[in-house]
Amino acid sequence: MDWFTERQSKGLSLSIGLKKKLFEGNSKFQKISVFDTIEFGRMLTLDDKVMLTERDEFIYHEMIVHPIFQMLKKCENVLVIGGGDGGTVREILRYKDVKKIYLVEIDEMVIEVSKKYFPNLGKYLNNKKVEIKIMDGAEFVSKTNENFDVVIVDSTDPVGPGEILFSDKFLKDVSRISRNIVSQTESPFLLKDFIKGYHRKLRKYFKRLFYYIVPIPTYPSGTWSFTIGTNENLKLKGKIELKYYTPEIFKSSLSIPPFYRT
Amino acid sequence: MDWFTERQSKGLSLSIGLKKKLFEGNSKFQKISVFDTIEFGRMLTLDDKVMLTERDEFIYHEMIVHPIFQMLKKCENVLVIGGGDGGTVREILRYKDVKKIYLVEIDEMVIEVSKKYFPNLGKYLNNKKVEIKIMDGAEFVSKTNENFDVVIVDSTDPVGPGEILFSDKFLKDVSRISRNIVSQTESPFLLKDFIKGYHRKLRKYFKRLFYYIVPIPTYPSGTWSFTIGTNENLKLKGKIELKYYTPEIFKSSLSIPPFYRT
Repeated sequence: MDWFTERQSKGLSLSIGLKKKLFEGNSKFQKISVFDTIEFGRMLTLDDKVMLTERDEFIYHEMIVHPIFQMLKKCENVLVIGGGDGGTVREILRYKDVKKIYLVEIDEMVIEVSKKYFPNLGKYLNNKKVEIKIMDGAEFVSKTNENFDVVIVDSTDPVGPGEILFSDKFLKDVSRISRNIVSQTESPFLLKDFIKGYHRKLRKYFKRLFYYIVPIPTYPSGTWSFTIGTNENLKLKGKIELKYYTPEIFKSSLSIPPFYRT
Repeated sequence: MDWFTERQSKGLSLSIGLKKKLFEGNSKFQKISVFDTIEFGRMLTLDDKVMLTERDEFIYHEMIVHPIFQMLKKCENVLVIGGGDGGTVREILRYKDVKKIYLVEIDEMVIEVSKKYFPNLGKYLNNKKVEIKIMDGAEFVSKTNENFDVVIVDSTDPVGPGEILFSDKFLKDVSRISRNIVSQTESPFLLKDFIKGYHRKLRKYFKRLFYYIVPIPTYPSGTWSFTIGTNENLKLKGKIELKYYTPEIFKSSLSIPPFYRT
């Protein structure tokens, strides 16, 4: 049996058993691969890092979307930065009052690959509410004159192309076009100092943060975090119950163990 | 760099980068190894499975002990099955009203190795409140005439020597000597069916269960579970705040995502 191995940190690696490789290509930005795995269904990797597996992607996608959406008073115009696989858009489309989703993905090949190999994610990108822009998310945000009810940063790691999406300048630009931002914020076990720094920047532009922790088996250290920044008076509420998300689970994920506090 | 690799399931492996091997021995029951690792401090493995690393063992040990102890009205006599590394005893000893801890460990070599290589765990086994019995935990429970405020099953996986500690007979025996049991109950991501079966057995002998989920980076799938069975009217309470455990964290860990419900 072949294995795909991701070096998650200096001394930690996760390996996933493979049935076969379904695709490998090099876009302008990164190496993109799709595998069929022994236990996790199909898996998408970018530069040899796990982006999603069919078996646990719902945890990530439910938890990046529903906490903020369940708190928003209004959610008509949404901006997703990254998210070319379509999973985040799939969850957003559960909200019938959403009128328009801009998806700004830097790498067109991610979208093509997802539509072909991950129909339960990619097909949602064909929805008529979705407008796809192939460009750099930070550049889009710095130039647009539109306003959004929320900006969702569904990015890769804060190294390489994803780095700018955690910068002071980007957050300032986001705060000009939206009162709400959600970002994936990496592993609190491996990158607590990064998260701490990001929160410090975020607080300059958003009055209140919701920092929450979610176990995601195929992500580095199995423990992931997300952060919402808001200038609205958001309140915990919500009724929706999905495979992972429930109002109670979101509330619980906001309890941060002392060891992980920023 | 050398790596230690644990095959966590058919198609999932975790590897931990090594500085060097400090010990390897074969006891009557299993292969025992101690490594110095690149990122996780020292690590104990049994039959090539990670039992603990210095960097994240506190999560496991705090969460197997404090939830039940924070709810107990009285905690004077405690029985620990397994737990030869001493971490569980360390956490129990925070409770000054504990008079006696029986530690029933089948493998004396685990205790010796822990005392030598993991002083921050093993040294607590020297406490005068601790009485160590080197024998099979199921046999001890079937024969003892003593009663315990709680029985803590700090075991290895439910295959091989650990299997009997999840059996109907064992639970029946425990219910004769204690009104409370806590057990580590494996990964809800990988072994949900096992947990479901165990809960079914547990309900035969204990009126009420508390099933809770905790992210532990070096354990299979990074998501772990524990289950308390009780015949007392236990209530959520508690004030203690540790590195991982807080009353709020325990309450949160009791929120089970629909996908993980048994």
